[in-house]
Amino acid sequence: MVNASTPDERPRSSDRIDPRITQTRRVVREAVLDELADAGFGGLTVESVAARAGVGKSTIYRHWRDRLDLVADALEQLNRQPGPQPDGGTARKQIEQLVHHFATAMGDPRLSATVPALIEAAERDASIAEFFHRYNAQRRQTLVDAIAAGIEAGELPGHLDSELTALALIGPILYRRLMTGEPLSTAQVTDLVATAIGPEHRAWA
Amino acid sequence: MVNASTPDERPRSSDRIDPRITQTRRVVREAVLDELADAGFGGLTVESVAARAGVGKSTIYRHWRDRLDLVADALEQLNRQPGPQPDGGTARKQIEQLVHHFATAMGDPRLSATVPALIEAAERDASIAEFFHRYNAQRRQTLVDAIAAGIEAGELPGHLDSELTALALIGPILYRRLMTGEPLSTAQVTDLVATAIGPEHRAWA
Repeated sequence: MVNASTPDERPRSSDRIDPRITQTRRVVREAVLDELADAGFGGLTVESVAARAGVGKSTIYRHWRDRLDLVADALEQLNRQPGPQPDGGTARKQIEQLVHHFATAMGDPRLSATVPALIEAAERDASIAEFFHRYNAQRRQTLVDAIAAGIEAGELPGHLDSELTALALIGPILYRRLMTGEPLSTAQVTDLVATAIGPEHRAWA
Repeated sequence: MVNASTPDERPRSSDRIDPRITQTRRVVREAVLDELADAGFGGLTVESVAARAGVGKSTIYRHWRDRLDLVADALEQLNRQPGPQPDGGTARKQIEQLVHHFATAMGDPRLSATVPALIEAAERDASIAEFFHRYNAQRRQTLVDAIAAGIEAGELPGHLDSELTALALIGPILYRRLMTGEPLSTAQVTDLVATAIGPEHRAWA
């Protein structure tokens, strides 16, 4: 998604880029997440990010269009989803990795604080809602696809609905982070996966 | 919970109260939810609620201690959970009613807008976090208890974990309201319940 909206002159993962530029981008992205967590989206400005990162505003505008572009890029780059399984990997393994990745992010104080900040901003600004819902949909789709692949391959029960199952996996993790003081533990996340997609077949054992 | 923190001189549901007082309380509670949805918890003050309700500040302070008491009371009174089943009712029926009640609240623009407002405020203020997490825990416990009763009675599969199952029911509904532009439909909520607690036994059919 970020790539689609990224000008061609701003490659984001290339070994051709000057390492100082790579470093500047990294510092700015970290500053975006810190600022979002501390001040909320309402308090985040290009000025406040520049000040926190210790760079000039012109440096920011050289790499990013506006504050929404900053947020989108920081989330994309600093919270990468696990990639596809290597050959021979199972859909179940992929699902476990994606769900544990989400749980780890929701257990990370800074990363998880971006969620209430964006939820609140999305209530008040349609362009932020559009960005945030699209971002979430793309992340969620990776999980929905892995579940659908698992059903297709006969690894998961055929009666599962891939959309509802994805929600049954990530909804509880989100709930615990936002509505309670206690994120789910790793062991509870493992139980959650087993409950939602059924126990692993051990036909080969 | 609200009762526990309510002074004895302020009975909240009694037919002995002057109907004008009952009406004033109702108008103020409505104003609290409107203000929370429009201005967030940060923008809600005793003054702003009084102005919106068209009453004096002294009237508010005669009935409520502070703005957190206003919010707690408005949520408690204007979003009542379904009561226990009549004799002969099943745990499954109770679970369905509780989950559909939560989904209806999350589909109501004003009621559901209180959630991001309180989530955001809870991030920044420990006393709000304490209130909000306790409020959520008490609401959730009703569902956890109904699930545990269903397992105990043999209505639900014995391998279910009542806490995780409660989260698998309400987490997806919360997720859809906060992270997407589309709350779950009634039909999807029905599917969600069937998925999480298993299909109904029809041994009597």
